[in-house]
Amino acid sequence: MMTPQSALARFYDLWGTLSDLRHAAEVLEWDQLVFMPPGGASARAEQLATLRRLAHEQLTSPAMGEAIAAAEAAVTATEADRAALRVARREYERAVRLPAALVVEQARAASAGYHAWLAARQAGDFRLFAPCLQRLVALARQRADALGHDGEPYDALLADHEPELSTAVVHALFEEVAAALLPLRQHLLEQPAPPPLGRPGPEGEQAQLELGRLAVTAFGFRWQDGRQDRSVHPFSTAFSPHDTRITTRLSTEDFAEGFFATLHESGHALYEQGIDEAWSRKPLEEASSTGVHESQSRLWENQVGRSQPFWEFLLPAARRVLPAVFGDRNAWEVYRAVNRLSPTLVRVEADEVSYHFHIVLRLRLELALLHGDLPVDDLPGAWDEASVQLLGRRPADLLEGVLQDVHWSGGDFGYFPSYALGNILAAIWMAAARQALPDLDRLIAAGSFSPLLDFLRRNIHRWGAWYTPAELVRRVTGEDLQAAPYLAALREKYGALYGV
Amino acid sequence: MMTPQSALARFYDLWGTLSDLRHAAEVLEWDQLVFMPPGGASARAEQLATLRRLAHEQLTSPAMGEAIAAAEAAVTATEADRAALRVARREYERAVRLPAALVVEQARAASAGYHAWLAARQAGDFRLFAPCLQRLVALARQRADALGHDGEPYDALLADHEPELSTAVVHALFEEVAAALLPLRQHLLEQPAPPPLGRPGPEGEQAQLELGRLAVTAFGFRWQDGRQDRSVHPFSTAFSPHDTRITTRLSTEDFAEGFFATLHESGHALYEQGIDEAWSRKPLEEASSTGVHESQSRLWENQVGRSQPFWEFLLPAARRVLPAVFGDRNAWEVYRAVNRLSPTLVRVEADEVSYHFHIVLRLRLELALLHGDLPVDDLPGAWDEASVQLLGRRPADLLEGVLQDVHWSGGDFGYFPSYALGNILAAIWMAAARQALPDLDRLIAAGSFSPLLDFLRRNIHRWGAWYTPAELVRRVTGEDLQAAPYLAALREKYGALYGV
Repeated sequence: MMTPQSALARFYDLWGTLSDLRHAAEVLEWDQLVFMPPGGASARAEQLATLRRLAHEQLTSPAMGEAIAAAEAAVTATEADRAALRVARREYERAVRLPAALVVEQARAASAGYHAWLAARQAGDFRLFAPCLQRLVALARQRADALGHDGEPYDALLADHEPELSTAVVHALFEEVAAALLPLRQHLLEQPAPPPLGRPGPEGEQAQLELGRLAVTAFGFRWQDGRQDRSVHPFSTAFSPHDTRITTRLSTEDFAEGFFATLHESGHALYEQGIDEAWSRKPLEEASSTGVHESQSRLWENQVGRSQPFWEFLLPAARRVLPAVFGDRNAWEVYRAVNRLSPTLVRVEADEVSYHFHIVLRLRLELALLHGDLPVDDLPGAWDEASVQLLGRRPADLLEGVLQDVHWSGGDFGYFPSYALGNILAAIWMAAARQALPDLDRLIAAGSFSPLLDFLRRNIHRWGAWYTPAELVRRVTGEDLQAAPYLAALREKYGALYGV
Repeated sequence: MMTPQSALARFYDLWGTLSDLRHAAEVLEWDQLVFMPPGGASARAEQLATLRRLAHEQLTSPAMGEAIAAAEAAVTATEADRAALRVARREYERAVRLPAALVVEQARAASAGYHAWLAARQAGDFRLFAPCLQRLVALARQRADALGHDGEPYDALLADHEPELSTAVVHALFEEVAAALLPLRQHLLEQPAPPPLGRPGPEGEQAQLELGRLAVTAFGFRWQDGRQDRSVHPFSTAFSPHDTRITTRLSTEDFAEGFFATLHESGHALYEQGIDEAWSRKPLEEASSTGVHESQSRLWENQVGRSQPFWEFLLPAARRVLPAVFGDRNAWEVYRAVNRLSPTLVRVEADEVSYHFHIVLRLRLELALLHGDLPVDDLPGAWDEASVQLLGRRPADLLEGVLQDVHWSGGDFGYFPSYALGNILAAIWMAAARQALPDLDRLIAAGSFSPLLDFLRRNIHRWGAWYTPAELVRRVTGEDLQAAPYLAALREKYGALYGV
């Protein structure tokens, strides 16, 4: 007969192994993207598959199920224990519902899908990808049904990223934002574009890194607990609050590409550095959700990094370090330049106003595919129509159209909403921070970011997975998740920037 | 009822998971030593402990025991399968004999020992380390008894590194070499030292790296299957034949330090790159032994890198890249300089002739400790006496005496012999290569290393763990392990160098 204490200890012990396996896999993935020699790929794939399989076995083992149940019954459980057990129960239930055969089949289809996607991009022929995509959609539907839902299969997929957030809520929120932003974007695109910044050139590489490092250090990134490297696509990862890694990619043409990627990834890393150490190797060590994670990156990238006060702070250093980019521009001119609206149809190049439409487009199509309302063969046409409607233009080819993103090729349906949710949440946090810190702009202009970071630490970071996204919003604002702060921030910013 | 085929498949399947866990741990260790931010240490320790524990559980599980036995009975097993099963059986038997409590206790004592060793070094007081060392010796003895032996407990520890090699054979061989080299060393130390090379200085860092890279590339290191980084202590590791990593450390004072470390580590990596891919994730993917591994590093470092033909090849590039070091010296002068005898008492700084005495000293003391003939409190005195006898001088302090090496602080008894064995084996391989390639010196002087590498590939590398060290020697030379080629090579080299 186990005592309550030993039931909790046993649960945390089993979870600690799971956590270590996951973090080990993440170290291997980081290495794969940053330093691994090309020859290492096939052995690395085996090593990762084994770690992921062992983690899945650890999570779904009968021992874990019994340990969670026994710990749930423990009368000595604290509030934090109970929060951890809620997260563990949620993860466990989802994992045990997925048949092993389906997981294997999805992995196989994802691998085939990725190669077919590459081939289709190369050949400019969607038909090379279509059969794989059809299979991936069917498997996503099977996955949703296996996970269980109340008639809306997308709910089950969304829950991979956003716990306890319904498709209905997200969809309505996104469409509300789209309706409000459509005329604003249209109007802004008709205005003359602000003059761009200068080219950094190949000789500006070190200076670009230095400026990014300067900004991230000012934000409060702890370098003894993290590092930055370069990779083909910028990303961030964390193996503990004391080991967070970010990467960046530099462009010789456009300073903004590498710089804002650095701010973006540092936002993710600041979140990870702020999660309470007491949750390490426990369920609460994770983020609240993908969207909340994204809200931290977007907050530092857009709400801070693309603000005028930020450029008042950084400009003296920027002009010194990168004269080719900044010349004798003032903060207002830089502020305007880094917020230029862009008519691009490529999501990853989109500006703050346009970004949302890229997600609405994908969400509509994902829902139609998953519901069986849109045959895969009709997807390119549907994409192009939605592009005209939402972004004002038909893609010239598949690369700025339906084949631009890698996600679907890996069977990742339900992921895109988190990006837009991140923008909406970032504005919510920033509005709340402004209420708590009325002189926030002055602080930012003075390079004093710790009051803002402390606010995020106290209200969001430290809690890890304790609260769901909706709970976090209610705790921080006292209200439900809503679009108003996001719309207000965009209207204010772009109204001033474009004088409209 | 399993068919023979499925018994083998099941065995390889279980071993594949073990291999992946080990390689994953090695990736985490590499990262820890090369790129991990300092804050990451404590989470990394947990992650590594979990991976090592899971690997141990995988190896010692009843399923593994049954799979090995079933596979051994499989009539379809090939020669390679049988060799793999011999290795698996050996590892399995040793692992299951170790009580889990002893393994845990050893890990704990090693951790305490390491910190006590650091403290004792800092304070210059052996007594701070003595109680921990006493415990570590007692545990090593328990470990040897648990593993089993025929009255010589050191056999069991040696077998961690050198399968099927007895203490009696190693000890006799080492004492024979020591007796033969003692007068040679004494005589050489009385000769005037050759003039040293110049200082590379801080501005020569990139050039030092470039020269090392040039040499390693000429040896045949496949950069698409490996990389080089910098670390506090040079080391090498491999996650597959297509992912081998080496590190180096540079000195601004002494070019030889970083350069020969690079050659040394590249020798390890060339071995790993040459192990037959068909053994990947199977027992044969490992090296034959620690000593055989070391023989590859010593061969490229000393037999090749410290030869005159090698400097005939490299000198033009070396003089161009590092004029401060090489000036207008000719190959003979460089050859003499990089083979200077050194009176140092520190093992890792020892020259080729002196190195052996450092190991003999340690082997004698390890045997005395393990047999209970030498109380730990008497160890510093015994060390100093042996130092006088073997190296001609009493250590000035503990750092060039008994506290110089980290190994004992981690409970590593039985490891040192592999270093000296590596030297002896390297000379054996090189003598055999000279027989097969009579114009080897001319090839090396012409920068043509592939005939030598091919010889090593065919005779040693590709076999992985198929043959024990003694079997490899017999296959390559038709004779038993012996000291003659090593002594002959040293006498010839130093006779010519010092004109004695």
